Amino acid sequence: MIFLTRRATFSASHYYWNDAWTEEENEQVFGRCANRNGHGHNYTLEVTVAGEPDPVTGFVVDLKWLKDVMERDVLADFDHRHLNLELPEFAAGKLIPTTENIAIAAWKRLEGAVNGAGGARLSRVRVYETPEIFAEFRGGA
Amino acid sequence: MIFLTRRATFSASHYYWNDAWTEEENEQVFGRCANRNGHGHNYTLEVTVAGEPDPVTGFVVDLKWLKDVMERDVLADFDHRHLNLELPEFAAGKLIPTTENIAIAAWKRLEGAVNGAGGARLSRVRVYETPEIFAEFRGGA
Amino acid sequence: MIFLTRRATFSASHYYWNDAWTEEENEQVFGRCANRNGHGHNYTLEVTVAGEPDPVTGFVVDLKWLKDVMERDVLADFDHRHLNLELPEFAAGKLIPTTENIAIAAWKRLEGAVNGAGGARLSRVRVYETPEIFAEFRGGA
Amino acid sequence: MIFLTRRATFSASHYYWNDAWTEEENEQVFGRCANRNGHGHNYTLEVTVAGEPDPVTGFVVDLKWLKDVMERDVLADFDHRHLNLELPEFAAGKLIPTTENIAIAAWKRLEGAVNGAGGARLSRVRVYETPEIFAEFRGGA
Amino acid sequence: MIFLTRRATFSASHYYWNDAWTEEENEQVFGRCANRNGHGHNYTLEVTVAGEPDPVTGFVVDLKWLKDVMERDVLADFDHRHLNLELPEFAAGKLIPTTENIAIAAWKRLEGAVNGAGGARLSRVRVYETPEIFAEFRGGA
Amino acid sequence: MIFLTRRATFSASHYYWNDAWTEEENEQVFGRCANRNGHGHNYTLEVTVAGEPDPVTGFVVDLKWLKDVMERDVLADFDHRHLNLELPEFAAGKLIPTTENIAIAAWKRLEGAVNGAGGARLSRVRVYETPEIFAEFRGGA
Repeated sequence: MIFLTRRATFSASHYYWNDAWTEEENEQVFGRCANRNGHGHNYTLEVTVAGEPDPVTGFVVDLKWLKDVMERDVLADFDHRHLNLELPEFAAGKLIPTTENIAIAAWKRLEGAVNGAGGARLSRVRVYETPEIFAEFRGGA
Repeated sequence: MIFLTRRATFSASHYYWNDAWTEEENEQVFGRCANRNGHGHNYTLEVTVAGEPDPVTGFVVDLKWLKDVMERDVLADFDHRHLNLELPEFAAGKLIPTTENIAIAAWKRLEGAVNGAGGARLSRVRVYETPEIFAEFRGGA
Repeated sequence: MIFLTRRATFSASHYYWNDAWTEEENEQVFGRCANRNGHGHNYTLEVTVAGEPDPVTGFVVDLKWLKDVMERDVLADFDHRHLNLELPEFAAGKLIPTTENIAIAAWKRLEGAVNGAGGARLSRVRVYETPEIFAEFRGGA
Repeated sequence: MIFLTRRATFSASHYYWNDAWTEEENEQVFGRCANRNGHGHNYTLEVTVAGEPDPVTGFVVDLKWLKDVMERDVLADFDHRHLNLELPEFAAGKLIPTTENIAIAAWKRLEGAVNGAGGARLSRVRVYETPEIFAEFRGGA
Repeated sequence: MIFLTRRATFSASHYYWNDAWTEEENEQVFGRCANRNGHGHNYTLEVTVAGEPDPVTGFVVDLKWLKDVMERDVLADFDHRHLNLELPEFAAGKLIPTTENIAIAAWKRLEGAVNGAGGARLSRVRVYETPEIFAEFRGGA
Repeated sequence: MIFLTRRATFSASHYYWNDAWTEEENEQVFGRCANRNGHGHNYTLEVTVAGEPDPVTGFVVDLKWLKDVMERDVLADFDHRHLNLELPEFAAGKLIPTTENIAIAAWKRLEGAVNGAGGARLSRVRVYETPEIFAEFRGGA
């Protein structure tokens, strides 16, 4: 089994806010992240697939295909967007776009295409908010 | 003469928009950056001062002092902010917060404190929008 | 389950020396690291916690809290210190401050606070001595 | 158990080509990588060994020894070489030198020396073709 | 005056060889780089233009335009190519594709488009062969 | 004119201390850096030479030669050393080993060999104490 990983970046805005709380409660828990004008990051999306190299191509998956899937299923919607305002996963305060929740959202968007393509399986999605902070999801309930 | 540099990072939102133009014109020139929900970046601010090392301390400037100046004069206002909406330099469409203009704005904010502190002079301000794109200002009219 | 990671850096001195050996034996095994004047590194401490995102905050843990724990329990003692001379784990030749042993020491310092805080668990501590060398501990006897 | 990792780099040429296919088929599947003049990369080889730190040295393995093993068993043959033309693993079209297959080849070259040296075991070999693409092998049939 | 920089990468093969010398002389001067099967690198091309930000757009130059120029005039020919065999600057042993000469070649290819586009001027071209080695050209005879 | 740069790293200890001051004064000015047990860094030394590429080799200087000069004249003495205790430039409190003074010391050590070797000239020495802090010297009185 080989674990093959591709990285890509996207630039997006977000803020942290829980509608059930007062402004004071939001600022106490979320600090500067509660500024509803939004702030932003250069996120890195790191997608790992697991499988056996095809003896004919030497590929676990075609990395150009994986790039296209990442572009179509994640980056086209996330890049140069405001995550709270423009993404169905996070809109209307449904879910707070923390790094943790972005990693889960990206997994859900990628799972169908990657696992439906043949032998390889989606193994891990990692999202870096900055070089110092990242969240990783490996699937599951 | 020694050139001494310190880096710091800030996370901010922005968009590109010229109020004198139609929406179509803005989208044609600025592309995805014209999305007025905003998008964001992890910016790196890199400040260079030039001077002679003090024979008593070995310092061109005290780097803790420079960190505090950068924090007070730039980061406190820029970090976790929406540059178009919250910064006097860019508010009300006065100036578009491109990397070029952010570098000039940071220079103007730092110039007084750095040049007023003694022998060292502000030599260069560089701002990275991403690791692939940066703008540098060295002062002047 | 989400794995959430935060990085921080510290600058410290150390040397490698086994008191049970002669100077020649120490130099033969440890080479330049046996210089007892000490040498140093910019270490990176990378702490991973595992848990479910809280549905109210979207956090596995509050990253500001994790930063404070890392600062209080590790960095306050390790940063700008000589590990052999100033850390109880390594003082008096008790244990050699290799990257391996620093990772274990950091785990032991962090385990109580992280695991005592609620649902999340300390999952992994990684210490980089340089960008080319790192050690990782995942707990255990 | 500690996982100890060392990185090294090598510069090599390669191309992707399946002798059983026509030129058109090769170009369709492999795109620009099918250029048989070759192109190249700065590869990073990242080797992880797992074991207990020796109580006498604090080492899982001696990192100078690991560096020498990586140099002798991988880098001496891979660095400044054309992988398709000069490596027995890939010569004569036997195997396509994808990142996946390079990781497996490096594992096979390192396994004997690392696992034969004492308590530590080869745990993971990761090869970066670029900072955006890497493959990882953890052994197995 | 603002200095605005954009980076891009390309992967290419090359070797060092002077046709006027014997094989022994080539190996003595160029070492492993004289292997005529070629070896390769992930090069980084870093292009700096100097000018005033346009008051209407905030741009020294449109970075999408600069990306297209870099792609059309350099990367389309250099990426996934063997520099000695496929580039007119270096073919037939005319010029050795050292980092120095690649930087000059890239400058010559970019100069016309950048300087012909309006107010901004090509200021600097830097080429990284590895993160440890780079050459910079600022024009001139 | 081409500017050709090579980087190398060294790991060293240092502290900041002025013998003419009391302990309180030293701690007030130098903070944690005044700890006389020492602390350390992974320094990066970046050496730039300026000259014309030799038409026969394509080299401004032979980078293997430059590596050997950097190793012999700087790294052999600085790497795995305590700068205050073991370097003649800094010993006995003569000069405080700040990043500024280390850059000047490295320039003075390299100047003779580089400028005595032929057409190229030492143009710039940059020393990074961390990725966030660096000092640059370009020669002069």
